[in-house]
Amino acid sequence: MQLLLTNIRQLVTVRSSGKPFKAGKAMRDLGVIENASVLVEDGFIRWIGTAGDFSNTLNADADTLDCSTYVALPGFVDSHTHALFAGSRELEFAWRSEGKTYQEIAAQGGGILNSVQATRAATKKELKKLASRRLDSMMMHGTTTVEIKSGYGLSEDAEIKMVEAISELANEHFMTIRSTFLGAHAMPPEFRTQRSEYITLLCERMMPHIAKRKLAQFCDVFCEEGYFTLDESRRILEEARKHGLGLKLHSDEFTSLGGTQLAAELGAISVDHLEHVSDEAIRALAGTKTIAVVLPGVSFFLRNPYAPARKLIDAGIPVSIASDFNPGSCMSSSMPLMMTIACTQMSMTPEEAITASTLNGAAAIGLSDQYGSIEVGKRADIVLFDVPNYRYLLYHFGTNHAAKIIKHGTILEFS
Amino acid sequence: MQLLLTNIRQLVTVRSSGKPFKAGKAMRDLGVIENASVLVEDGFIRWIGTAGDFSNTLNADADTLDCSTYVALPGFVDSHTHALFAGSRELEFAWRSEGKTYQEIAAQGGGILNSVQATRAATKKELKKLASRRLDSMMMHGTTTVEIKSGYGLSEDAEIKMVEAISELANEHFMTIRSTFLGAHAMPPEFRTQRSEYITLLCERMMPHIAKRKLAQFCDVFCEEGYFTLDESRRILEEARKHGLGLKLHSDEFTSLGGTQLAAELGAISVDHLEHVSDEAIRALAGTKTIAVVLPGVSFFLRNPYAPARKLIDAGIPVSIASDFNPGSCMSSSMPLMMTIACTQMSMTPEEAITASTLNGAAAIGLSDQYGSIEVGKRADIVLFDVPNYRYLLYHFGTNHAAKIIKHGTILEFS
Repeated sequence: MQLLLTNIRQLVTVRSSGKPFKAGKAMRDLGVIENASVLVEDGFIRWIGTAGDFSNTLNADADTLDCSTYVALPGFVDSHTHALFAGSRELEFAWRSEGKTYQEIAAQGGGILNSVQATRAATKKELKKLASRRLDSMMMHGTTTVEIKSGYGLSEDAEIKMVEAISELANEHFMTIRSTFLGAHAMPPEFRTQRSEYITLLCERMMPHIAKRKLAQFCDVFCEEGYFTLDESRRILEEARKHGLGLKLHSDEFTSLGGTQLAAELGAISVDHLEHVSDEAIRALAGTKTIAVVLPGVSFFLRNPYAPARKLIDAGIPVSIASDFNPGSCMSSSMPLMMTIACTQMSMTPEEAITASTLNGAAAIGLSDQYGSIEVGKRADIVLFDVPNYRYLLYHFGTNHAAKIIKHGTILEFS
Repeated sequence: MQLLLTNIRQLVTVRSSGKPFKAGKAMRDLGVIENASVLVEDGFIRWIGTAGDFSNTLNADADTLDCSTYVALPGFVDSHTHALFAGSRELEFAWRSEGKTYQEIAAQGGGILNSVQATRAATKKELKKLASRRLDSMMMHGTTTVEIKSGYGLSEDAEIKMVEAISELANEHFMTIRSTFLGAHAMPPEFRTQRSEYITLLCERMMPHIAKRKLAQFCDVFCEEGYFTLDESRRILEEARKHGLGLKLHSDEFTSLGGTQLAAELGAISVDHLEHVSDEAIRALAGTKTIAVVLPGVSFFLRNPYAPARKLIDAGIPVSIASDFNPGSCMSSSMPLMMTIACTQMSMTPEEAITASTLNGAAAIGLSDQYGSIEVGKRADIVLFDVPNYRYLLYHFGTNHAAKIIKHGTILEFS
């Protein structure tokens, strides 16, 4: 099975020559090839070059797709989402526009616990059906790999239902999916006065079960005032490490509790949010391999400060952009729009935004050996955009420019 | 020719019962009917009610469309765009992300004059072809009426080429189009030291020609430091009034020169931008019939302050939202995204944002007797969105929810 993409107007390879991610100035190097060709074989990239260099001996009878009107990018890797949930929270959106505070919204039944209620009530089948449609839409906008977190269950049954659903979707959907156990997303109401007991349940019952059945690759904690303390976060993540799970952390979203330093110390694969990250935390992060995942859509949606992406990149920290697609704080999964927000509000350059949404996204979920760039030997996840150049994709915002989605070498059709 | 829309999940009529626009608290009244039906005849709305009320005597053999999964809104009226232009300015977008200032970008060949150069060089046919594709895309996102300005010509020939192109598109494209003469968009380089002579050319040659041939319905001026002074703006608008053109003004975008007070004094149909509008100007505007057109996408794109929409509405001023779609300061024409920005960044409620994008948009271009609401006797411009309720349309952002576009009673098909 060969597929030849020819005359690609601009091929944005994001090539890293074997490095797992890009940091600092390297984030601006997209490895762009004008008028390029790519040969795909059995779902992998076999050859890349300029159209003129292509030798017919490489392919006997490949299907050929003329790409002279397209710009090709690696499929986006959205490394932080909560795409599995029931219910929706447009009323909270309206309340916020009227100036209602977080506390007032919570008092009216809003917040994470709203989605917990709906998700607990839904069957696994219903959750999968809802998520599957969302994954279709994400793919249509150019995302080919995604991380999905649990965390709207907050009980043993409901959390396991969620990671089972995510794992089943990973087998059944075209999307490449990584599963993260986020039992520590919020304190369930039943345990409000017995915090330690919930954490024990989480560490001693849920986690061993999930790890044993390989229902998640990562464990994440919402380290934040009103959610989980720094000590509680440490306890959970240290336990997760024993079970062989990769570590992630929601850190510094509203306040700076020291979570970022903890993530650095424990060698977390990523530390996410960082809207209120301190200079001290940035220093702790610099030089580690932990990816800083920034979430432009959340700050936009909640009208909160943006993570200091410029400072992070200038400190040499590899930055990834993710959507944080979720019903409460960012009801969008459009990676191109996240990149536009990053450029207009966070002073990231288009090149940095693209690296952050592809290679560095893959690194944030441990998949950059296979995904996140268009290089020989990697999986053929390529998106063809109907734009004149890669900058235009971020510049002309609010519309979907994705023309063709190639996943593992197959051109997808959406009905 | 009859078309019956039945079982509409939510019909958002934005009914105004004959009033040309809504102001203050009335902007929150969307006239929503659940489980509604609408009968369309010969391009006009003939009957509206709940599905249960519909009597078969009304229609003998109407085509029937089941809308039980749709929310229906009036087609959006985008009352401020510069959708006719050649070239694109993604490089300026990239430069801004790198922190380059407006002055630096202008020195590198950016700014309005960049688009002037490209637009002057293009033929009328080329300009129309480019704009026509953009109009298709706008319609696919739910806009059915649009205003387009000239202003990238800045010479007699090129300005007339632009308004001719806009007028021809108005005849040839499905979109309802209003044309605005904006010869006073910037001082052309040839006249930098002879400002008064350009204004004379504009008033004594271009304007009479354009008015006589009815190539524009409105005249607009960019009243701003470095563009046109308050006195120059007055001279141009007073002349335009003599020619029977409606008056519009770009006012208070970067500085507060008194343009808003001028617009109020001259009875302009709209005053647009208002990012830096003063309290004094708001007082001058209150009680007039001038529509305040705010442009959320510009502030987002340029990372500038937002117009104080909340203050304007609370002062009883009718507010409209427009995209300002243009290659320099807002490369997006998605009205749903503009509404999301208005709700998240400007404290407008979803209801106000919808009124501002429909009825009040129509009022800003003098068309609210025919467009902007779903009421008996008005044109049947109706958009069916695949969402559970109208709030969801603004809440789930960054993707296109428009499922069917009905223009003058016809369901459009896009190839």
